[in-house]
Amino acid sequence: MNTVKTIEKISQSNEFSLSCPVSFQKYPHVLLAHGGGGKLMHQLIEEVFLSVFDNANLNQRHDSAVLNPGQGQIAFTTDSYVVQPLFFPGGNIGTLAINGTVNDLAMSGARPLYLSCGFILEEGLAMEDLWRIVQSMRQAAMKAKVQIVTGDTKVVDKGKGDGVFINTAGIGIMEYKQKISPQMVQEGDALIVNGDLGRHGIAIMATREGLSFETKIESDTIPLAGVIQDLISEGIEIHCLRDLTRGGLASALNEIALAASVEINIDEPQIPVREDVRGACEMLGLDPLYVANEGRFIAFIPEKDVKKALSVMKSSPAGREAAIIGKVTRKSSALVTMTSAIGVSRILDMIIGEQLPRIC
Amino acid sequence: MNTVKTIEKISQSNEFSLSCPVSFQKYPHVLLAHGGGGKLMHQLIEEVFLSVFDNANLNQRHDSAVLNPGQGQIAFTTDSYVVQPLFFPGGNIGTLAINGTVNDLAMSGARPLYLSCGFILEEGLAMEDLWRIVQSMRQAAMKAKVQIVTGDTKVVDKGKGDGVFINTAGIGIMEYKQKISPQMVQEGDALIVNGDLGRHGIAIMATREGLSFETKIESDTIPLAGVIQDLISEGIEIHCLRDLTRGGLASALNEIALAASVEINIDEPQIPVREDVRGACEMLGLDPLYVANEGRFIAFIPEKDVKKALSVMKSSPAGREAAIIGKVTRKSSALVTMTSAIGVSRILDMIIGEQLPRIC
Repeated sequence: MNTVKTIEKISQSNEFSLSCPVSFQKYPHVLLAHGGGGKLMHQLIEEVFLSVFDNANLNQRHDSAVLNPGQGQIAFTTDSYVVQPLFFPGGNIGTLAINGTVNDLAMSGARPLYLSCGFILEEGLAMEDLWRIVQSMRQAAMKAKVQIVTGDTKVVDKGKGDGVFINTAGIGIMEYKQKISPQMVQEGDALIVNGDLGRHGIAIMATREGLSFETKIESDTIPLAGVIQDLISEGIEIHCLRDLTRGGLASALNEIALAASVEINIDEPQIPVREDVRGACEMLGLDPLYVANEGRFIAFIPEKDVKKALSVMKSSPAGREAAIIGKVTRKSSALVTMTSAIGVSRILDMIIGEQLPRIC
Repeated sequence: MNTVKTIEKISQSNEFSLSCPVSFQKYPHVLLAHGGGGKLMHQLIEEVFLSVFDNANLNQRHDSAVLNPGQGQIAFTTDSYVVQPLFFPGGNIGTLAINGTVNDLAMSGARPLYLSCGFILEEGLAMEDLWRIVQSMRQAAMKAKVQIVTGDTKVVDKGKGDGVFINTAGIGIMEYKQKISPQMVQEGDALIVNGDLGRHGIAIMATREGLSFETKIESDTIPLAGVIQDLISEGIEIHCLRDLTRGGLASALNEIALAASVEINIDEPQIPVREDVRGACEMLGLDPLYVANEGRFIAFIPEKDVKKALSVMKSSPAGREAAIIGKVTRKSSALVTMTSAIGVSRILDMIIGEQLPRIC
């Protein structure tokens, strides 16, 4: 069977492949019947999801996967992905669906283990697009060291969806023994960001608007569990972690300031933003501090561990551009301020509405 | 704050309430901005999801919920719900989203504990509809004794969704120590169904087509974890369980026959189908054995425990109409046959495509 061969080839080469199962010749697009509980649905599940995501837990093929996460506390999270366009420089909706949920687990100090995966397909979706998405999910899951262990597929009529929506829920095991949460944030904590801001949102907007720039702006989507595990295993004291997705850095800081009742000050010149991203933001009338990222997080680290934390992060592929960008100035009512290069401070507020719709 | 009052009232009275938060007067419909990561999204999450689903695990308000499921194996499952219409006799999309995932956990012999909940809202959805759905989810979760501990909200542009899609993933703890799976099915096992078939699918179809019948046909959606726990705690040996959703009884039996390599025979006269449901099926050209249920399951029980299992099921509200409908006749290649009242046997095959689209 061709599917099996394709999968073997991928397993061996560990490379991205676009070869589709033979059945795609007969059904090149998703039909309502692919979600109907009959033979076509079973074929889709076998040939696409089970064969690509292949692992012992998933292969139980029962209503639930039965798992052994080990003893102790677990972390549990979910996200739905509705990004448009489905494919963009640096990734696609499938990459996001894996990395985004892995990152939410990592932000709790958990080691991500298992993902569930729910597809809502629109009738008429090209099977080849689904195949490419599913292959990317497989690769992203391997990179993040998680297994997709259970799933679900629904099909909605043409015009009642938008190609494909993906929900992933994730389970991780808690390995960091202290609580990581806004409530742990202390006066004097330093803020470290793991890299440059704004690329994911700009990559999406540029694709959507048909813009091109001199340099290619690719999404920053990556799994963050590795760098967090590095911090934990080096014994760094971590007070709070937050990934900088919808609403960007500014919204994340406002949320934490509110939950922790602290004043946070960041230094504008220290915030890493690539020149091409800054230029694109100006052109599009966006502020990079509010633009979504998919591989960036902020860590609140007590003064005593800041240097070590920065060095650990810089030695991880997911933290090479890490930078200290500010600190918690005092316990107070929630406030986020930013000091510019010439020493002027302004309030960095939460945005009211939507800056970039459907960026994840 | 009115929201809080409303919630208190509900908590006290434990009744369904349609009073909406005050902010709904300003924003009676979902806007794209409700999914944008800004103030409006936070308001929606606080006033609707957090206040209605209120529990200590959810109130952590972090990227993941940190949980203590206890020692041992866990079960993990997911389902997306795309039913149309959103409201139907006997329930709505929210009821299904809780019961469906609870039931998938129960079918593995797990006691359901925690649910995640991902909403994909279409711009323009009436806030009051969302409120009713969320209230139903709260009630269903209480009835099924599960907590909604983590969630996500996305908004898609008008015309790119269909009101609301809901994904729930669930975690349960394994309390039955034997494996419950098709591989455990034995020659001689009896098949017990917990009630009459076909009501959910017919309730949906009737609403969709504007049909009315002399008696009201309501969806059979209920949580099944209680009756399964009863079987387990009574020491019944359970070989396999399967809920009879998409594709109905016939598809479930075919799946199990295939996975277990057995021949299954069922007795047509023993299969409980209400007269009005049978009539509606004839009118609509449907076979009740292929129609989806949302509160029905089939149990494979060894001969020695059949009587006791039937009696335990009949004493549970979720099994009052339980009936023995057939047995596993032999190990062989997969085959499902049905014997009619006059003794004629025919093959009950899996359907190829879609019988009823979007029934769950």
